[in-house]
Amino acid sequence: MRRDMTRYRPFRIDTVRVGWVRDGIATLLRDFSATFVVTDESVRLAAGLDNFAARTEAVDAALRRLREQGHFAGWRNEAYAVATSFHDAPLMQMERAAAPAFGLLTHSVHVVGYRGTGEAMELWVARRSRTKAVGPGKLDLLANGGQPIGIGLRENLRKECWEEAGVPTDLAQQARPASAVAYLFEDDRGLRDEIDFVFDLELPPDFVPRNVDGEVEEFFLWPAAHVCRLLAETDEFIDDAAMGSIDFLVRHGVIAPETPGYLEIVHGLRSRPNGLGS
Amino acid sequence: MRRDMTRYRPFRIDTVRVGWVRDGIATLLRDFSATFVVTDESVRLAAGLDNFAARTEAVDAALRRLREQGHFAGWRNEAYAVATSFHDAPLMQMERAAAPAFGLLTHSVHVVGYRGTGEAMELWVARRSRTKAVGPGKLDLLANGGQPIGIGLRENLRKECWEEAGVPTDLAQQARPASAVAYLFEDDRGLRDEIDFVFDLELPPDFVPRNVDGEVEEFFLWPAAHVCRLLAETDEFIDDAAMGSIDFLVRHGVIAPETPGYLEIVHGLRSRPNGLGS
Repeated sequence: MRRDMTRYRPFRIDTVRVGWVRDGIATLLRDFSATFVVTDESVRLAAGLDNFAARTEAVDAALRRLREQGHFAGWRNEAYAVATSFHDAPLMQMERAAAPAFGLLTHSVHVVGYRGTGEAMELWVARRSRTKAVGPGKLDLLANGGQPIGIGLRENLRKECWEEAGVPTDLAQQARPASAVAYLFEDDRGLRDEIDFVFDLELPPDFVPRNVDGEVEEFFLWPAAHVCRLLAETDEFIDDAAMGSIDFLVRHGVIAPETPGYLEIVHGLRSRPNGLGS
Repeated sequence: MRRDMTRYRPFRIDTVRVGWVRDGIATLLRDFSATFVVTDESVRLAAGLDNFAARTEAVDAALRRLREQGHFAGWRNEAYAVATSFHDAPLMQMERAAAPAFGLLTHSVHVVGYRGTGEAMELWVARRSRTKAVGPGKLDLLANGGQPIGIGLRENLRKECWEEAGVPTDLAQQARPASAVAYLFEDDRGLRDEIDFVFDLELPPDFVPRNVDGEVEEFFLWPAAHVCRLLAETDEFIDDAAMGSIDFLVRHGVIAPETPGYLEIVHGLRSRPNGLGS
């Protein structure tokens, strides 16, 4: 079997690399030479685009033209920050559906819903709707959503908790930030370079999640050990939710340090070529 | 000021690197040519030492001779495993006091003692005895101890909890494994290449730690936010305990993801040149 040798070119704004553009997309961008300077070595924004608004507007116009030609399925009219790290000032913003094609660094909020402690701990797990563009029918966290530009992590968390699981605001506010996990992989849309902020949300015994936005088919309440087995033995979980779930199971002692591979897991959850913050 | 350019040579057993030997120690080991093969490029065990017992015995004899000459202060008659990772079979064992001189990978058990949750969370913090060889008078965790060969992590945890903080076994057993942190630094004894298994221990409101083995001067019960400030603004904590404490504060949401530097902290706590497991 011949390996797909698709090549990525650095996507630069001024001299800063902010993503990786797949060959196929780079070729399409040649048609927008007032916006993109495409060479064999890189894709960069045209020199005149020297501020946030100008970059955003020019790129958005090009992407919308490509969208009309059938690219960027799942357009959401929701913008992601384009930056080298979460805490750095964004250089521009870009439609979320185009982020993988440009290999942008993106961020999400992960909310692990649970109840009980120790042996009695149970996790709420969602099954994604069969109609979702990404990961249809896969298992997911209680709530899991991309972090758009312009709202805080907690605001996004409250919104996702409500839309995905019907968690009221006063309960969602009790979610506790606990970790960040990173992953980098290739899928048919491009390169996913993502860091997820993981929050734990302890739910009262009488709370039952119910989906509001139609993106979740059903919820399960499973013992932590069962979730652990599913993660180890199946690929039922969508990849990023698997990372967030494993992180939770490590932090709550369900995956024990005596387990061979424990240290590789702890390390791997937070590994990124250049670290998480740059 | 001239920088100290002390060089380290790889310490090998067969072809496997298991540590880094400082120049000064390497020179001393030349006197034991039946045990150590010392070249400018490496220190390795003599070829005939081809099993755990033979290696351990030969090296121990050499180290005891050097000890008689005044080296390896703080000899404890407690052995550490010599291996490339925690879950791999050890190739030999070595006196703990010699581990930094050989730059061995070592492991410890960290126990963060706390009570309460959210804003009301408090941590128990120890002040190390002024007579300790390492870090006298520094702040430390409730319990913090090197992991010797031949006993499990939990057994070591119960032992350290009792000796350092008078925690009875049934309470110590409730400690929950939650993480591992790594650090690599140089001190005047050599290279510290350490991975610490971090456990959280929730203590009842009426429990007050009391030191048993004379290695702790006093215990403090401080709000988590105060511990956070001490870690950020002072160097009162001994280095490894600072790592375990920061890890706890991240996992319990005291250090929030909105904090600039958060992702560098989360990543840095678990970074090691070759990962944690190899």
